Amino acid sequence: MREPRQVTTRALGPDFAVGPAERYFEDYVPGAIYEYGERTVSEHEIIEFATAFDPQDFHVDAAAAAAGPFGGLIASGFHSAALAMRLLADHYVSWVASLGSPGLDSLAWPAPLRPGDRVRLRTEVLEARASSSKPDRGIVRTQVQLLTGGDAVVLEATIVNLLARRPASP
Amino acid sequence: MREPRQVTTRALGPDFAVGPAERYFEDYVPGAIYEYGERTVSEHEIIEFATAFDPQDFHVDAAAAAAGPFGGLIASGFHSAALAMRLLADHYVSWVASLGSPGLDSLAWPAPLRPGDRVRLRTEVLEARASSSKPDRGIVRTQVQLLTGGDAVVLEATIVNLLARRPASP
Repeated sequence: MREPRQVTTRALGPDFAVGPAERYFEDYVPGAIYEYGERTVSEHEIIEFATAFDPQDFHVDAAAAAAGPFGGLIASGFHSAALAMRLLADHYVSWVASLGSPGLDSLAWPAPLRPGDRVRLRTEVLEARASSSKPDRGIVRTQVQLLTGGDAVVLEATIVNLLARRPASP
Repeated sequence: MREPRQVTTRALGPDFAVGPAERYFEDYVPGAIYEYGERTVSEHEIIEFATAFDPQDFHVDAAAAAAGPFGGLIASGFHSAALAMRLLADHYVSWVASLGSPGLDSLAWPAPLRPGDRVRLRTEVLEARASSSKPDRGIVRTQVQLLTGGDAVVLEATIVNLLARRPASP
């Protein structure tokens, strides 16, 4: 048996009526806005992620980055996406009803994420509709933002999640 | 000085006329199609990535995944994106002219990426246009696919890169 999930962040305000282990499609209500966090992003982890997946100078080499287009190290955009995903997986996407995702409608990196930035996630349910082809599930569209302490938007995306409907009570 | 980049994959067919360290905006020609790879994705790395960034059962727990919606472990979609980014960074995006990316136009995960899959990247330049506001750079749109050995498309995206124009010869 693997270790229980280590959740080190929390809801920063209003949250779903039920926790992620009791949550189904019906709990995603269009217009609902939640925030989760916060988490400081270190230079070490920016370099570690980028060394593995995006070894461009401005992600892995502090000296070269200082002379480069961003005036210093910035996180890979896919690192920002992975950090947003971790907050989604811990707090937003049901732990019992998730059926994966077909993709994203959009993904933008309006501002760079820099070492020492403290980030939080903001989610807004845009749409929740029952699947017309599969009666056991629904499709939820969510606007996601990853924000710094200074409210810079380092990632903005519209994500799509497939979620099982709540089983009928016995 | 950091270590030189370890590139363990290669062009699988036609490639740019110049290598990534001599490549500028002008080298991205609409219609050009390249492929890079290949790389086997292990169960260990799927679980390692997802434990850090996307700890849903079907990404981190083989036993739970076997009974889940995909009938076995699959990689986080953001892991697929990170693997595609690594091939882009090593082979496609200029090592000297990259000015980052404002975002993606689209990102889809048509098929799951499973342990043992061997992946390659396919790129097609869709558009390359000079910036109207900044004469030192251009904007390149590229359709990217991450494909398995069986040609399943595990990721399809339209990416946007900002690239410096080639400096005038002295």
